[in-house]
Amino acid sequence: MITRLRDRGERALLDLITRLVRPARAVPLGPGDDAAVLARISGPLLITTDALIERVHFRSGWLSSRMLGRRAFAVSASDVAAMGGRVVAAVLAVAAPETLPVASLRAIIEGFDREARAAGGALVGGNLARARDLSLTVTVLGAAPARPVTRAGARPGDHLFVTGTLGGAALGLRLLLETPSISRTAAVRRWQMPAARLRAGAALARRGLVAAMIDVSDGLLIDADRLCTASGVGARIDVARLPLPPALRRLDTAAARTLALRGGEDYELLFAVPPAKLRALRAARAALGCEITRIGELVTGREVTIHDDRGATAAVALGHDHFQRARGGRIGAP
Amino acid sequence: MITRLRDRGERALLDLITRLVRPARAVPLGPGDDAAVLARISGPLLITTDALIERVHFRSGWLSSRMLGRRAFAVSASDVAAMGGRVVAAVLAVAAPETLPVASLRAIIEGFDREARAAGGALVGGNLARARDLSLTVTVLGAAPARPVTRAGARPGDHLFVTGTLGGAALGLRLLLETPSISRTAAVRRWQMPAARLRAGAALARRGLVAAMIDVSDGLLIDADRLCTASGVGARIDVARLPLPPALRRLDTAAARTLALRGGEDYELLFAVPPAKLRALRAARAALGCEITRIGELVTGREVTIHDDRGATAAVALGHDHFQRARGGRIGAP
Repeated sequence: MITRLRDRGERALLDLITRLVRPARAVPLGPGDDAAVLARISGPLLITTDALIERVHFRSGWLSSRMLGRRAFAVSASDVAAMGGRVVAAVLAVAAPETLPVASLRAIIEGFDREARAAGGALVGGNLARARDLSLTVTVLGAAPARPVTRAGARPGDHLFVTGTLGGAALGLRLLLETPSISRTAAVRRWQMPAARLRAGAALARRGLVAAMIDVSDGLLIDADRLCTASGVGARIDVARLPLPPALRRLDTAAARTLALRGGEDYELLFAVPPAKLRALRAARAALGCEITRIGELVTGREVTIHDDRGATAAVALGHDHFQRARGGRIGAP
Repeated sequence: MITRLRDRGERALLDLITRLVRPARAVPLGPGDDAAVLARISGPLLITTDALIERVHFRSGWLSSRMLGRRAFAVSASDVAAMGGRVVAAVLAVAAPETLPVASLRAIIEGFDREARAAGGALVGGNLARARDLSLTVTVLGAAPARPVTRAGARPGDHLFVTGTLGGAALGLRLLLETPSISRTAAVRRWQMPAARLRAGAALARRGLVAAMIDVSDGLLIDADRLCTASGVGARIDVARLPLPPALRRLDTAAARTLALRGGEDYELLFAVPPAKLRALRAARAALGCEITRIGELVTGREVTIHDDRGATAAVALGHDHFQRARGGRIGAP
């Protein structure tokens, strides 16, 4: 028989969570009191919050509970990476139906805690509430670099780079929509468990190599447009340069490029590098922990344009990001 | 015609939020980038997260959107008060149906921001996602006092005090359940807009007057039991001493005492004061910003007992706090 949340007292569930979270350095007081206590952090702080909601951002058959916990952490930590920061601590608010198996709650917490520790941080607190749909709302606290990297600051002439590859998560999501199952193909894994580019973000910021940075959560075009809007510049993206994962290289070119341009949830970093910093960037590559690819440049104006191999130019319609189509709309609305 | 979330682009909604939140000192970068940047905080930090979920913690007819925003902040800030801390910043993750009027979202944010400012903090970031039910998940970051006050640390012989009055919010909730409407009676207002006892909590901690502290969120008996469990002590509560608000004094004694003992959501502070600190506590009263009442003492053992005017003693059944009855159970399950 499966033990569900409704079979256990709230206190027993909170005790379970408190026991699962192992003590961490720099956390004088972890979960279990009114608030967690963190040791002093020298320098400015970063704080960001994000939510994963069942039937909007994921469906229960698409990933295991442990993966869900890991994913929830990574998605929020990615925002800290995009500022060039270091993760310090995270809190996790779980809202869940009373029918959720206790084992699933345990796996969510364990996955989250593991990912937080791997990033050098710690899960220090949380909340558990009843709700119709499962949701994880995460807040990550980070230590900012001396000069936090914002979306503003890019200038015409800067080179536009991206970490890793693009479009893999969107392909994985399409596969999950077609055949909902916890499959283990590379593309599906890419969607299930993104890796926040914390090492790359911190290394780029520490060396002062980037003028502006953002993580690619909603798709390259949308996020490039956000960076451009904040910086007051335009961008020219060379579509032939987009770094595609192996699974996308097996698709026809147009389909692969569409996924790389419009697909979201890769959680790579998109960043602007002034020409004077290119040599230093090359020297720093080994410290980033991932590949980087130059995919275009920033230009005057406000438009993001894409350029194909034949030199043709197209102004890009970003598509509607209406509330009812944003995020959830991408994955099939409830 | 009412403009609803689905009528606006996600970006327009995020821009709205960014505009609503006024710049604050100690916040070099507010909402609108990947993460907010906060100025350095000297000393240890506090962090706590909490959620208010429609149909579980509130119903839409029970309070205005502005009240809901204020309430969401206060409920989380109360945890910072209970550690003796000072509020620094807060982030707010809103999940809402696409049919939510934009004006409601605006009022939620404004109410939250106002309450955060009144507490000396600032709303610095957030998230907006689609969901079936409206929910606000709040994380508050605080500055800890030199010695944060936990639930552990009380000893037999300590006096047990509570700020303000008890039972008013529970009465207000009962009135709302009987006659759902945004009424303005004192009891209903008490439920709608609790005040986190930040001034009292900080003053008590700064002067080293309290051995242990907790906020009364789930009811005096449950929260006293939590403090006792963490401290490894028992408690003896003199029921005749419970401070009742005027609205409760009009009820019959048994009903009023039940509300004061078992009703939650008053967000008062319950704290243990060593006998040697009583004189200093008396001297500090003016600094607390509210009344305090001695309601009993801590004893050896692990039991919380209540004592009535005639000297009779009753061991207390806390009641089941099963997940399906906790919090939501209190207010009528969905």
